[in-house]
Amino acid sequence: MIQYKGKKPSRRSFLTGAAAAGAAVAGATIARAQGTPDPAIVNMEPWAQYNGVGVDAAPYGVPSKYEADVIRRNVPWLTADAVSSVNFTPLHALDGIITPNGLCFERHHAGVAEVDPAEHRLMINGLVDRELVFTMADLLRFPRENHVYFLECAANSGMEWAGAQLNGCQFTHGMIHNVMYTGIPLRLLLAEAGIKTAGTWIMVEGADGAGMNRSIPMEKALDDCLIAFKQNGEALRPEQGYPLRLVVPGWEGNMWVKWIRRIEVGDQPWYAREETSKYTDLLANGQARSFTWVMDAKSVITNPSPQAPITHGPGPTVITGVAWSGHGTIPQVDVTIDGGITWAKARMSGPSLDKSMHRFYYEFDWDGKPLLLQSRAHDSTGYVQPTKDQLREVRGENSIYHNNGIQTWSVNEQGAAENVEIS
Amino acid sequence: MIQYKGKKPSRRSFLTGAAAAGAAVAGATIARAQGTPDPAIVNMEPWAQYNGVGVDAAPYGVPSKYEADVIRRNVPWLTADAVSSVNFTPLHALDGIITPNGLCFERHHAGVAEVDPAEHRLMINGLVDRELVFTMADLLRFPRENHVYFLECAANSGMEWAGAQLNGCQFTHGMIHNVMYTGIPLRLLLAEAGIKTAGTWIMVEGADGAGMNRSIPMEKALDDCLIAFKQNGEALRPEQGYPLRLVVPGWEGNMWVKWIRRIEVGDQPWYAREETSKYTDLLANGQARSFTWVMDAKSVITNPSPQAPITHGPGPTVITGVAWSGHGTIPQVDVTIDGGITWAKARMSGPSLDKSMHRFYYEFDWDGKPLLLQSRAHDSTGYVQPTKDQLREVRGENSIYHNNGIQTWSVNEQGAAENVEIS
Repeated sequence: MIQYKGKKPSRRSFLTGAAAAGAAVAGATIARAQGTPDPAIVNMEPWAQYNGVGVDAAPYGVPSKYEADVIRRNVPWLTADAVSSVNFTPLHALDGIITPNGLCFERHHAGVAEVDPAEHRLMINGLVDRELVFTMADLLRFPRENHVYFLECAANSGMEWAGAQLNGCQFTHGMIHNVMYTGIPLRLLLAEAGIKTAGTWIMVEGADGAGMNRSIPMEKALDDCLIAFKQNGEALRPEQGYPLRLVVPGWEGNMWVKWIRRIEVGDQPWYAREETSKYTDLLANGQARSFTWVMDAKSVITNPSPQAPITHGPGPTVITGVAWSGHGTIPQVDVTIDGGITWAKARMSGPSLDKSMHRFYYEFDWDGKPLLLQSRAHDSTGYVQPTKDQLREVRGENSIYHNNGIQTWSVNEQGAAENVEIS
Repeated sequence: MIQYKGKKPSRRSFLTGAAAAGAAVAGATIARAQGTPDPAIVNMEPWAQYNGVGVDAAPYGVPSKYEADVIRRNVPWLTADAVSSVNFTPLHALDGIITPNGLCFERHHAGVAEVDPAEHRLMINGLVDRELVFTMADLLRFPRENHVYFLECAANSGMEWAGAQLNGCQFTHGMIHNVMYTGIPLRLLLAEAGIKTAGTWIMVEGADGAGMNRSIPMEKALDDCLIAFKQNGEALRPEQGYPLRLVVPGWEGNMWVKWIRRIEVGDQPWYAREETSKYTDLLANGQARSFTWVMDAKSVITNPSPQAPITHGPGPTVITGVAWSGHGTIPQVDVTIDGGITWAKARMSGPSLDKSMHRFYYEFDWDGKPLLLQSRAHDSTGYVQPTKDQLREVRGENSIYHNNGIQTWSVNEQGAAENVEIS
């Protein structure tokens, strides 16, 4: 039996809500409706007739035409051009913990490489006993593992450091996705090459026009990194690194090099462009903090939110959102509807997996008055998601990356939500 | 650390395999290749240049053009027409346990209904205190849950009762998929209507042209059934019942009514067409066994298989497949490479979830000789997947539905696989 941590809707509360506000009610009795029958239940709908659309229609299926607005979106003014740019996962339109492959946000540094797997190679060189080149067929002879991991861009919520800016959780928090990867433990490939004693770092490099590269300490490389070739069961999508991407569980997305073609073993970090001039945290004193790899515990309410207002009147209302931590699992999320005066434990639902997105719900009876909604994640290390003010106290106001502060949505009497910040 | 139950590939075994057969080897030393460099690693590939394909290119993403053959396929001679017919999940091209939404097999009785969610209604009537009609908006006010469940058609592997027929696991075992559902526990909606004491069965009915209906005992309805509206995070696909489908965990797929529009509470089963003339098991004595709802433990090797031969020579080889049970989890799968003379435990990888697909691997050093491959699932109740002969002993040779017998692939020296049966 499930335990509802929020208030469980009862028939009485549904009826009370409707009576009080004359709003939509979850259960409308047919008896009551007999005078004015609902056309949608009485009439023959067009889809209740044979339409000739069979199993040949879509060998690879697509969403319903009624879901055409559930897409990745970009923010044109945010970056210089749309190619080496970013789009965002429509978190407000999703539920559960799996991100469907077609909706995983994209971040490119030189566009989407369309790599031919027959021509793709993965090379391991540097401080190794034997420099190696693998074809895709070679790699499929190694043991594989399956794990669900979140991938979050270090710049997710970056525009919110200075205050509430982007009006929708797709834009404030949508540089994240969560899929099941199938991949080869990186340590097996490194063992095949043989790491020399001096080898304490690796450099990973992509095959796209950017040749994007990052340094990773050997300890992480030998721990849980994967060379992945599947996401949610099928081949990686081109925009996610087809045919091969690096998976660096819990660490910032920029390190998960796509179209990975080379791994060099060395004795120090490379200080690549993406770990010096970018993806560092500019502190108040003007120093840039680098190598802040782990994504800390974070959460966001996805419904209601600016793109997904409450569309019914007072009464039973479902609040839902997602939470994640690069340090482990999320045993608890708190929700407040009054801007932090009182907090209640949300109900977690779905598998609780290491370094994966978690789904939470909070069911309550809305009285129709304005709300100040926030969520606060606790991770399995005991760490609690901070407020944005607490983050600024420690790291100043120059940062872009690694903003895991608490998000606030203001909801008005009509159910419309807005991005705000409260102190 | 993972424990490999199969033999773990070592550098030595890779080299031995290559030396013995002159075949592809997982690690080709760059030093060795200097005389005849691999053009794919030496030359500039076209995708290593900026190509202008940015984040606006595909607001809803699609697979790589190199994966164009990974699609659902039907078997034209199998059913009378392609509309009220079936296609199959390409299991041989997938890995992990999640089936991507675009590749979930379809089975229709009057084509794909394209339902407008704004016009869709779910009605509960019959032996209830209050007959109710829900809009989609009404339903979103109820608490939701998230679960990964397999859905298997009762007729999956049906053509194999008489002997080995269809040459590919997509066709022998592809009437199954495994996704994460978000849905409302059916018991909450039934409680809202109030079940009268005499109400011991429900009838569930779809909104498509077939008006497909089935009877379900109240005990199951109140246990773990869901009214689902999301699969793998996004809205259900049209061919999977958009905007609402019933989820009946562990039970035959035909009962998971798509486009569900009505639930009637009654005091006996309805003996609908799909539980009398179809979806029953014709026994040897001519009697048809009905109401055999639970899908028993089953497994199949997906690689190698007729559509996915071994493409390399002797040496390290990965065998993989999937297993599931309507009674619980799959703690163990056994694999044989010699037609059942010797069995070894496979390595399970990925979350082990109740009534979900599980993934297994068996890594071994192939000597290049012919193989007779089989897998055998054990479920959490202790039940062991039977041979096809054992099934026939109990149920005769007239059956189509509920074939969970052990599958055999014969692999020749070239790595090609074929559907065979051995006694």
